[in-house]
Amino acid sequence: MRFDLGYDGTEFSGWARQPSRRTVCGVLEDTLSMVLREDVSLTVAGRTDAGVHASGQVAHADLPASVDVAGLPKRLARALPSDVRVFAARVVPAAFDARFSALRRHYEYRVADADFGAHPLRRLDTLAWPRPLDVSAMNEAARLLLGEHDFCAFCKRRDGATTIRELQRLELVRSEVDGVVTAFVSADAFCHSMVRSLIGALLAVGEGRKAVEWPSSLLSLSGRASGVTVAPAHGLCLVRVDFPGDGELAARAEATRRVRTLER
Amino acid sequence: MRFDLGYDGTEFSGWARQPSRRTVCGVLEDTLSMVLREDVSLTVAGRTDAGVHASGQVAHADLPASVDVAGLPKRLARALPSDVRVFAARVVPAAFDARFSALRRHYEYRVADADFGAHPLRRLDTLAWPRPLDVSAMNEAARLLLGEHDFCAFCKRRDGATTIRELQRLELVRSEVDGVVTAFVSADAFCHSMVRSLIGALLAVGEGRKAVEWPSSLLSLSGRASGVTVAPAHGLCLVRVDFPGDGELAARAEATRRVRTLER
Repeated sequence: MRFDLGYDGTEFSGWARQPSRRTVCGVLEDTLSMVLREDVSLTVAGRTDAGVHASGQVAHADLPASVDVAGLPKRLARALPSDVRVFAARVVPAAFDARFSALRRHYEYRVADADFGAHPLRRLDTLAWPRPLDVSAMNEAARLLLGEHDFCAFCKRRDGATTIRELQRLELVRSEVDGVVTAFVSADAFCHSMVRSLIGALLAVGEGRKAVEWPSSLLSLSGRASGVTVAPAHGLCLVRVDFPGDGELAARAEATRRVRTLER
Repeated sequence: MRFDLGYDGTEFSGWARQPSRRTVCGVLEDTLSMVLREDVSLTVAGRTDAGVHASGQVAHADLPASVDVAGLPKRLARALPSDVRVFAARVVPAAFDARFSALRRHYEYRVADADFGAHPLRRLDTLAWPRPLDVSAMNEAARLLLGEHDFCAFCKRRDGATTIRELQRLELVRSEVDGVVTAFVSADAFCHSMVRSLIGALLAVGEGRKAVEWPSSLLSLSGRASGVTVAPAHGLCLVRVDFPGDGELAARAEATRRVRTLER
């Protein structure tokens, strides 16, 4: 079963379950298990860090066909705390895997550089930046980062994980309504702390502390760049994850099965 | 001096100062007095109730010309708690009065009628309504309330205050992006609890419990309608207050002065 969900990350220690911490996965699995009277184990598209929000997170769980999905978002809304909600639940092909089927992840990062800081009603998901930002300089720097690169300079290393990613969109737009700058960031996948490190590097460009060419110059490093600040978690939100259609999912599963058969 | 400001009303007992309560006026006056080293007493355009938010509130204070207004929003942002912000501060003609010069107040009320309730990141300023709303029926009912009427059926009576108001806009729009229904409510002024009572009456129409004609039929009552539920505070936000231009302000002040001279 596929779950589409969102959360205010403020009071969560991130997605991943941790002993004696309040995590999104922990709260969701516990509530789903209670409501469905089944042990539920979730696999997620984007393992967000502590404080990061989501409006378009996707997770899946393998559940017996007998489970009653009708009205599940409404039943869950009564059982979940108000900072996490399941927007939709539906049965998907067995080949669907929230983590491995995902084609692209889309994040947004909100920064307010107004004198007064962040608007009180959006302070939970907006970083207040104390100096004015030059958005066109940030966009110039951003364009130089697009494409497939080894982003190890922008990643906290995890053993064995690749840091080669295809950055498909990195674009900053200042709202004409409230002046807030939103960074739109899309890639096939992100390594740990990559979005926030990219934003941290662009903020240094935006306030004139670093040259437009500086962030992309770091792509030649073979390890984490010491000069890059990881931007705070609360400006970041996972807004969408793209998946193949059901037909393509089945074809991919079949192809994987054949490869595995040949490998034996 | 004129102050344009906003707040998240969640943790405030409304605008008006009350002993041993955390109020917007109390927090702002205390902080302004500290930062400006002057006793500051504020007059406000809309005295919002406990839990009501503002993104376009306006207040004024009479201050000596010597007060340093440069960079005041930035200095205040460092001193104020994050749930209230002064967006702009500027010197205005002596005739400017945030309460009595105001021509129109504009409010918005956000209701989510999705199965899952309110989005976690907007739960602070969105009412979750448990049943689907018929927005076109609500708009039909709303149109019948427009114009100048005695709105006493929708007001908590305050001694001596008139309940005759001109309701200039009452319109509901469902967002194509997230499905949230926003009510746009504008009048020359509102009596106590009027916006939330209007919304409460329209919600009864929207869920099919009352007929489209019911809210306007209450206008013939000579006292508060017992069947009208006051909608919860946290969906409501004061978004804008209209004032005359500086030239008109001066002309009005002169006219008032002449009337007073003649009355002596």
